[in-house]
Amino acid sequence: MPPEADLLQRRNRAMGPAYRLFYRQAVHLVRGEGVWLYDVDGKKYLDCYNNVASVGHCHPHVVEALNRQASTLNTHTRYLHEHVVRYAERLASSLPGDLSVCMFVCTGTEANDLAFRIANTVSGNEGAIVMENAYHGNSAVVSKLSTGDYPASERPDYLVAVEPPNPYRGSYRYREPDLGARYATRVGEAINQLSERGHDPAMFLCDTIFDSNGALTAPSGYFCEVYKQVRAAGGLCVADEVQSGLCRLGDHMWGFEDFGVVPDIVTMGKPLGDGHPLAAVVTTPAIAEEFAYKFHYFNTFGGNPVSAAVGMAVLDVIEKENILQSVHEVGAFLGAGLKALAEKYELIGDVRGKGLFYGVEIVRDRATLEPGEAEARNLSEILRENGVLLSTTGPLNNVIKIRPPLVFSESNARMLLEKLEQALAA
Amino acid sequence: MPPEADLLQRRNRAMGPAYRLFYRQAVHLVRGEGVWLYDVDGKKYLDCYNNVASVGHCHPHVVEALNRQASTLNTHTRYLHEHVVRYAERLASSLPGDLSVCMFVCTGTEANDLAFRIANTVSGNEGAIVMENAYHGNSAVVSKLSTGDYPASERPDYLVAVEPPNPYRGSYRYREPDLGARYATRVGEAINQLSERGHDPAMFLCDTIFDSNGALTAPSGYFCEVYKQVRAAGGLCVADEVQSGLCRLGDHMWGFEDFGVVPDIVTMGKPLGDGHPLAAVVTTPAIAEEFAYKFHYFNTFGGNPVSAAVGMAVLDVIEKENILQSVHEVGAFLGAGLKALAEKYELIGDVRGKGLFYGVEIVRDRATLEPGEAEARNLSEILRENGVLLSTTGPLNNVIKIRPPLVFSESNARMLLEKLEQALAA
Repeated sequence: MPPEADLLQRRNRAMGPAYRLFYRQAVHLVRGEGVWLYDVDGKKYLDCYNNVASVGHCHPHVVEALNRQASTLNTHTRYLHEHVVRYAERLASSLPGDLSVCMFVCTGTEANDLAFRIANTVSGNEGAIVMENAYHGNSAVVSKLSTGDYPASERPDYLVAVEPPNPYRGSYRYREPDLGARYATRVGEAINQLSERGHDPAMFLCDTIFDSNGALTAPSGYFCEVYKQVRAAGGLCVADEVQSGLCRLGDHMWGFEDFGVVPDIVTMGKPLGDGHPLAAVVTTPAIAEEFAYKFHYFNTFGGNPVSAAVGMAVLDVIEKENILQSVHEVGAFLGAGLKALAEKYELIGDVRGKGLFYGVEIVRDRATLEPGEAEARNLSEILRENGVLLSTTGPLNNVIKIRPPLVFSESNARMLLEKLEQALAA
Repeated sequence: MPPEADLLQRRNRAMGPAYRLFYRQAVHLVRGEGVWLYDVDGKKYLDCYNNVASVGHCHPHVVEALNRQASTLNTHTRYLHEHVVRYAERLASSLPGDLSVCMFVCTGTEANDLAFRIANTVSGNEGAIVMENAYHGNSAVVSKLSTGDYPASERPDYLVAVEPPNPYRGSYRYREPDLGARYATRVGEAINQLSERGHDPAMFLCDTIFDSNGALTAPSGYFCEVYKQVRAAGGLCVADEVQSGLCRLGDHMWGFEDFGVVPDIVTMGKPLGDGHPLAAVVTTPAIAEEFAYKFHYFNTFGGNPVSAAVGMAVLDVIEKENILQSVHEVGAFLGAGLKALAEKYELIGDVRGKGLFYGVEIVRDRATLEPGEAEARNLSEILRENGVLLSTTGPLNNVIKIRPPLVFSESNARMLLEKLEQALAA
């Protein structure tokens, strides 16, 4: 048996059938550096997919901080330690408004799970409003909020999913007026639906870049209007910044800042630790106090000195390497390039996103919008052959997702555009 | 303001009031090595409390593995990687029976959360049976299973908590016959209670050493009888080995092996990674397949190459340093020493546990069993003054918990016994 097939078979036996692999033939990686990944045969790939390795694979400053603190002390937060406090302060100082209290967990799942607990407790309500086809994580409760992962018929009665603001193929399209306000009415309807079932909303939870819906940029006024309605109904507004945070969208540190709103709770995931399991929930002192009034305690090891050291090293890199400006510039270049390709190739129905998060929607017919799922998958396979890693997303699985490490350069973007054009031409 | 008070104030501001600290005056740690922890003033403490630093604080072999892999590649499990497969195989080979499929997560909370999802899915039932005063983690669902953390009046109707087998102050006492069978009837009653509410059990979830109940060793026959009843009612048996696993109890790698049972699902937590956020759910191929039939996917980053490298390094240490035998021997010495102290000091009502997990129950009166909560806390404070870190636990908070890193030596145990005797005499 070839060694690859053997490893696959062992993997299936040892890890079971719940795990999935990317690509028809799995990519077997052994090394990473910056935006580059290397497979077992020495083949080099440009990573256009991995946001978790936020400041690049194996960033030496981050690895050094990890190693230094792991050699010194790693323990829980019931002893006093300087790091976690300093990290919390630095994170808080990156956020607007009253968002100044950080609670640390290990994964985005745990962050969204805790956010829902806080929202339940503080609002006194049980309802949740999320997007159709959302993804927020995989705990028992959060997997329910991940409406893309299971049939709508199994949704719990406290949960309503709303149509995401997709002006390419949603109910209201590009060039129609008042897109933001019109899509926001969906949330008003959801509040009414909850109310008919005897629930008020505890929270509106939304990934600011709508990753699993194929990367959407909320139309002007959308979030403002939604937040107003949710708050009027007694709910908290939760921004899931696992995808859109940490300069990803190129104009601000946090994605929601693009839209002039300030959430009540912000959740952050593993990009905070460049891959190290570090995640956080940030909220206001008033909300934190109300939650703590009922629950005395919630996580021993989230925010341990090693995780905090790693988190600070990531913030160092963001500052020292001017990541925000770089994402802004490279993102503008990449976006323009993708739009130029859309002019040229009929297969591209829509290009959405900003900064270093783009969705390129593949269609068979620009008039009917017939989704090109197989075509999108094929493009991804050709690109993989040609040394570029990305993936597909969206409810129809026909959106090419481009979401590279934040240290992606203009020359990396140029290479991606060239390889993508080759694949489109093929 | 003294620097310590300043740090505390900053911590309260930046992390909010939900966090708690040990001791009247918090311990401010800066360094750890093996069983030793050092505070900011250079004071040295013998760590008799921390199980997460399983093979000792900052074990060089573990740190080296962490550093090497973090410098090489850290990515998710949708690419193929050798480490996670090898780690899964090594973990599976440490387990009896058919327990051979590993699913990786980042925390014990995530492990128990996933175990409940699996049990729900595979059994088709909704009920859960746990101990009174249990602790299993802090996600929305798992915090409900943590019955010690909130009032009984708020228990969901799918959940029944049973009396733990505590022969010191429970319904059936030391020297009564058939303790195992008699305490097991509590689970039969719980199944009936669930049934009256229209539920069948999805799972029986139990921490094998009953940590939050003050460290109990299940009486002979207890788990056998309980598992039989739970399985007859269609439920799965889940062993939470976050506390009792990894040689902790000194006779086997996993705590449940002491009792001649094989669980359907085993959950493991951060001790797997000596503090690195690594946790796992291990189950049988049949259960894994049935779960995967319904859910295609559950965790991208659990089992990343860095976590797997760290997990393997911990297993290396356990093998190379003969940890099981050492825990057995040091545990026997420590247990005998604690029992000798109990002969001498009226304040000690009961000594329970084995290996390197002991509960020393403090009472004001050996006849009435009046709990000595303040006395237990005082002992812990005096010991801290004298350079020994431990804590109190149990539903009455009067049990001194001794649960040091597994590399605890006989001379460490001797020091603990001496300091404990000094504190008892004081």
